[in-house]
Parts: sequence; structure tokens; C-alpha cells
Amino acid sequence: MKIGMLGTGMVGQVLAVKLTELGHDVMIGTRSVEDAKARTGKNSWGQPEFGDWYKEHLQIKVGTFAEAAAHGEWILNGTTGHGTLPALRSAGPALDGKVMIDISNPLDFSKGFPPFLSVTNTDSLGEQVQRDFPNVKVVKALNTVNAYVMVAPKSLGNGDHTLFVCGNDAEAKTKVTDFLKHEFGWEQIIDMGDITNSRATEGLLPIWIRLMGVLGTPMFSFKVVK
Amino acid sequence: MKIGMLGTGMVGQVLAVKLTELGHDVMIGTRSVEDAKARTGKNSWGQPEFGDWYKEHLQIKVGTFAEAAAHGEWILNGTTGHGTLPALRSAGPALDGKVMIDISNPLDFSKGFPPFLSVTNTDSLGEQVQRDFPNVKVVKALNTVNAYVMVAPKSLGNGDHTLFVCGNDAEAKTKVTDFLKHEFGWEQIIDMGDITNSRATEGLLPIWIRLMGVLGTPMFSFKVVK
Repeated sequence: MKIGMLGTGMVGQVLAVKLTELGHDVMIGTRSVEDAKARTGKNSWGQPEFGDWYKEHLQIKVGTFAEAAAHGEWILNGTTGHGTLPALRSAGPALDGKVMIDISNPLDFSKGFPPFLSVTNTDSLGEQVQRDFPNVKVVKALNTVNAYVMVAPKSLGNGDHTLFVCGNDAEAKTKVTDFLKHEFGWEQIIDMGDITNSRATEGLLPIWIRLMGVLGTPMFSFKVVK
Repeated sequence: MKIGMLGTGMVGQVLAVKLTELGHDVMIGTRSVEDAKARTGKNSWGQPEFGDWYKEHLQIKVGTFAEAAAHGEWILNGTTGHGTLPALRSAGPALDGKVMIDISNPLDFSKGFPPFLSVTNTDSLGEQVQRDFPNVKVVKALNTVNAYVMVAPKSLGNGDHTLFVCGNDAEAKTKVTDFLKHEFGWEQIIDMGDITNSRATEGLLPIWIRLMGVLGTPMFSFKVVK
């Protein structure tokens, strides 16, 4: 499948590699291709900046947000919380009618660590995206785990943990759920309901961020135990 | 141990019974003993109101918030989110110097279901309690599971799930952790750090509330899978 992967950070990098390995035709989207390729060294998380990473992954296409959105039959939004709405506006009408897996979280680091949520409780970033792009089939998913766990859930507890999806389009949710099961190996996926449930799954980030500190690793996930 | 159990709802009822079975000397605290005993029938959750419940549990003491606080060597706060600060103000100086397990969550049902959080993100009810009662050793705990799971964690997945504690007093946290392990049987307890981590654990309530609907039961818990 042709996939438009928005965002050049760790989520975009890890997902683009995995999806390419699985045979998908991925184009990474960014605000400015030139600027993205000019970023070198390591970022504050110790991950390679896009310019260095890209030199090792020349088989993956890179374009503007609009070009990646036009390329993709599906769109994956892996931009930052504050970058999400500008990126999608930049992508524009190329998004219309498409399934979008929204992985973003409204983390605001402007007051330091731990971040707070720029929108929460009575609204969510997932809802903002769906409201601003009513013709896009937004499925909120994968935002509760690290990028390496997203694409390899069996790397933790033999896959015995839970992923949450939500969205207003039932058919899109079913397709995304099947995709995540068959492509990445997720076994426990809970459909939380409509897109307002983004409040709940984005609301896991405050404990996720703090657990990363307590556990000393981002390689963990939540399991719903009944 | 003498325990002051604040709150006559399901949390207060279930904990008072379990703690009494374990040999503790429990006094339930309420705003008005007379009013509490006058409440009969079932509440909106299908649980017996305190007046009916109490007739079957006459061995458990009941008093005002101040009387229960004076009775307890430890205090357990099982009042509602909006009832917590008034209850503690009513209990007053009798709380000073004591360990308090704060089980409350700032759920606001005033706009219907699902509730929103009356305080979240950049503050929390746990922090408000600690700020207003600086001489109390507040340990936030048990607020992420149903009352029946609180006292019987092994009833779910043989106890293979996670409880979170946080608070500013390290010694109080250690004592509470030992208590929860030995009295109730919790095996996986993660110390999240200081009381500001209440933002994270109270922040689990939005997904908890929605999962209760999706799963059709309040009998579940979260496990952190590494």
C-alpha cells in the first residue's frame, strides 16, 4: 500500500523503516525537505536527526506534507503535538477521504519536563484533527507506546499487552485494527468508541512520561487485566 | 491498627469490611451520622445506600469526619472528588501528623457521563490535599481500581497487575506499600515519586471510566508490561 508518513522524528523514522520492510511504498512528509535533510547530529532524545538518518535510508521517499499526503492511500500522522494541525493544513485537500492513523500526542514541553498536555479533559488533539478535517477518517491509535513497541509489540511480554483505537468511522477502525494485527503483530486491540475517546488515550501520556523516568526505559506498555 | 475511613460510599463500605475482617479497628467518618443512616435503598451504581448497608455491619463504628480522624492512627480518604476537601476541613487538626491514603479522584459528573476531571494536567486533587494539609503524610494510592479490586487484587489475573503510589513522605510511602502488600495482597506496586504524580494516576480515570463501559465491568486493572 502507498503510505504518507507525516513527520521526520523517531515515530516517522521507525514506522517508515518497518513499513518499507513489509513491502509498503512509503513517502515521509515534512515541512521543508531541504531543512529536514540539513538537520544532522543527535536530537535531545539521543536519536539521529533526519539528515543523518536519511543517508542510511535512501530507498524511502521524502516530500512535503502535501506530497506525502498525495502519495499515500493511507496517512499516518507522526508529527509532534504542536506540529500536527499546521502539518495537516499544509497537506490540505490531498487528505480528503483517506484513512489517517493519528499517533500524535498534545505534549507541551514549553515549561520543562514533565510536559503537560496542551489540550485534555474536555477536548483532545484527536478531536481537533477530526473537527478540522471532517473528510478524513481519523483513527487514533499507537499513541500510547514508543515507536519501537508500535511496530514490534511482541518485543514486550510476548505481545501480551493492550493497544487502544478510537474513531468515528467504523469501517476505517476495522481496517486499521486488521492492519495493526497483521502487519505489526498486535493481538490485544480495544475499540474504545468514537474519537472523543482520544481524551482517554492521550490522557495516558502523563503517566507514560513519568513511568519512562521511573522504569528507566521507554520500552513498556499497558495491559488491561480483567 | 485503628483506622479512620472517611466516606460512606462503596469505597468506604468495602474497605471497612475488609479491614475489619483483617482485625483492624475501623471507624467510618461521614458529614452527618444521622443523615448517613437515614439513606436507604440503592444508589445510582446499584449499591446499597449506607443506611441499609450499616444495618448488616453494626460491628463497624460510625462517626463524624472529625471523630473518625481522631479515632484513626491512619486515615483512608474514600470520599468523592468534590467531597474530599470539605471532609478533610471538617476533620481538621485530628489529621495532623498522620498517614493518609488518598483514594479520591476529582471526577465531575455535573455535565453527565463520562465525567471530566475537576482538576488535572497542571495540578491534581492529591496535590490540593497535600497543600491544604501540609502536616498530613498523604500517600496517593488505590485510586486506579474498583473498591473490590483494591482489597482483593488476586481476584484479577492472579494479582498480575500494577498499583501506583506517590507522595512526598518516603517513610509513609514505604509503610503504605508494605500495608497494601501484606494486608490486601498487592504484588506489583510502583512508587511514582512525589505527590505531583497524582496528576498521572488521577489521569488514568478518563480511560478507566470509558473502559468500564467498553468491557461492561469495573473489575479490571492496568498492568505495566516491560
